[in-house]
Amino acid sequence: MLKILNKIKKYETIIIHGHKRPDGDCYGAQFGLKDIIKQSFPEKKVFVVGETSAFVDFVGKMDTIPDEIYQGALSIVVDTAVEDRVSDPRYKLGKEIIKIDHHIPVDDYGDLRWVDTNFPSCAQMIAYMYYKYRKELKLSLEGAIAMYTGIVTDTGRFRFRGVSNLTHKMAGLLIDKGVDVEYIDGKLGKETLEMVALKGYVYSNLVTTQGFVYLKMTRDIIEKYQVTDEQAASVVGLLGGIEGYPVWALFIEYPNEVRIRLRSNGPTINELANRYGGGGHAKASGAKLESWDQLPDFIKDVEAVVQAYNEA
Amino acid sequence: MLKILNKIKKYETIIIHGHKRPDGDCYGAQFGLKDIIKQSFPEKKVFVVGETSAFVDFVGKMDTIPDEIYQGALSIVVDTAVEDRVSDPRYKLGKEIIKIDHHIPVDDYGDLRWVDTNFPSCAQMIAYMYYKYRKELKLSLEGAIAMYTGIVTDTGRFRFRGVSNLTHKMAGLLIDKGVDVEYIDGKLGKETLEMVALKGYVYSNLVTTQGFVYLKMTRDIIEKYQVTDEQAASVVGLLGGIEGYPVWALFIEYPNEVRIRLRSNGPTINELANRYGGGGHAKASGAKLESWDQLPDFIKDVEAVVQAYNEA
Repeated sequence: MLKILNKIKKYETIIIHGHKRPDGDCYGAQFGLKDIIKQSFPEKKVFVVGETSAFVDFVGKMDTIPDEIYQGALSIVVDTAVEDRVSDPRYKLGKEIIKIDHHIPVDDYGDLRWVDTNFPSCAQMIAYMYYKYRKELKLSLEGAIAMYTGIVTDTGRFRFRGVSNLTHKMAGLLIDKGVDVEYIDGKLGKETLEMVALKGYVYSNLVTTQGFVYLKMTRDIIEKYQVTDEQAASVVGLLGGIEGYPVWALFIEYPNEVRIRLRSNGPTINELANRYGGGGHAKASGAKLESWDQLPDFIKDVEAVVQAYNEA
Repeated sequence: MLKILNKIKKYETIIIHGHKRPDGDCYGAQFGLKDIIKQSFPEKKVFVVGETSAFVDFVGKMDTIPDEIYQGALSIVVDTAVEDRVSDPRYKLGKEIIKIDHHIPVDDYGDLRWVDTNFPSCAQMIAYMYYKYRKELKLSLEGAIAMYTGIVTDTGRFRFRGVSNLTHKMAGLLIDKGVDVEYIDGKLGKETLEMVALKGYVYSNLVTTQGFVYLKMTRDIIEKYQVTDEQAASVVGLLGGIEGYPVWALFIEYPNEVRIRLRSNGPTINELANRYGGGGHAKASGAKLESWDQLPDFIKDVEAVVQAYNEA
């Protein structure tokens, strides 16, 4: 951590990257880190780049920068285990590259790495860095909102097992910086009547098999309920926690593939996800099917995972 | 707080009461306090009495005691603002009565009172008492699970405005005592296929008016979906947070009345609840209708509250 701080001190220009299809934690880590650097070293130029995500756009706005800015600059990539998921790929143009992540490492990219899977969110890592060096670092409300959002979204509101005393300590510290938890909840929790109708559809149309519950989210349905792909993907959480169904998945139809959001509260499912062109956490992974034809095989494979788990 | 601790030290027998239709926080405060007293003063007799609630029965089991035990005993009532909501009413048989609560005080019952509305849960008050006198008090995992459950349920998972640095500090302390957050989430979050089907019904049948969204939960529906009254009542949360609808309510049909669970993320609604035989928090209240005939009037009154709020 100290090495990273020293690199940050050394560079005049710092460009912070995250991953493709960024989530709240990616935004939280990116904009939290930007705020800390800007507040602590106002003379530095700090940019946050990459894909945007509408549901967390209250956290901050991405910068659009030309390639030249990377010359002699420091690239920092947060929350991204796999190299080709970094958004955008120009991070390689930086003079040096730092990786900060809490996922199981897949690609050891970067000149300097801080990877710690004990953190349930990457935003908590950034908050912890601030906390550890709080005598020389500064943080404004904006950065606190960003990191709080990251912590909340990646821990499912302090629900997942990685949540520790430190997680709560960091959340408390951010609240003391002025974070209004109801404001953030309102931003994250607001939903439209369209989404409410979609939820009704999801609960009324989910399919159960042996220990596995899933829903097919076809283009028809996404269009019928007038929601974005992102909103459609977000309903995966609705399928979780049903008694007798430790694994659940949402299959989302895209033009050339079916993307899978696979979740578990029992068996480890990232190995299965690896076999279907994906990966991720032990209990929350992504994967894909080439077409709906592969669905029966995928279901069989999930059932085998559940059965092995039940027999263990 | 010190006065309360001294009273606890003085009595040999202590009986802890909560409120009717107890929630997670009521259980959390009751069983948390019991555990602290039992661990710290093993020679004392400590009982928890009152109505039970199935969804939090993993927190602890109520004691059944004869009237005689109250003789010369200390009664402690937690989480209950209104005297006639105390369960059961024998708390009055105690030699002295202590009230510990975080609701806006309605009845100033009890010989000694610790009422602080700054606490978002009563369980946090108990945890704080433990924390403050941790040099002489003890706490086991059982009590930690109870209080963590209370904190989580009454803050909607750390979402409501009363949540502070202290809330997170107490949560972190309880986690350090061994609380497994996923275990508790599993206990609280588990739902049956019947409940999932009911949710589908709720999302597909909610009614929207001017700034108000509600659902009529009739006996027919409760029977059709084979859920308990408690489960039926729990769906009020599904109606919240919809854009443009700052007030929501669930109307639950009972044999002789319609009970209302009224919620808001904008206007204060407990005054309205008072007019309909209820009360509670500024943004979460209970009330009742004598019959469905009163519903149109109630809706008009809610709309007036929303309109006044929007114009303020």
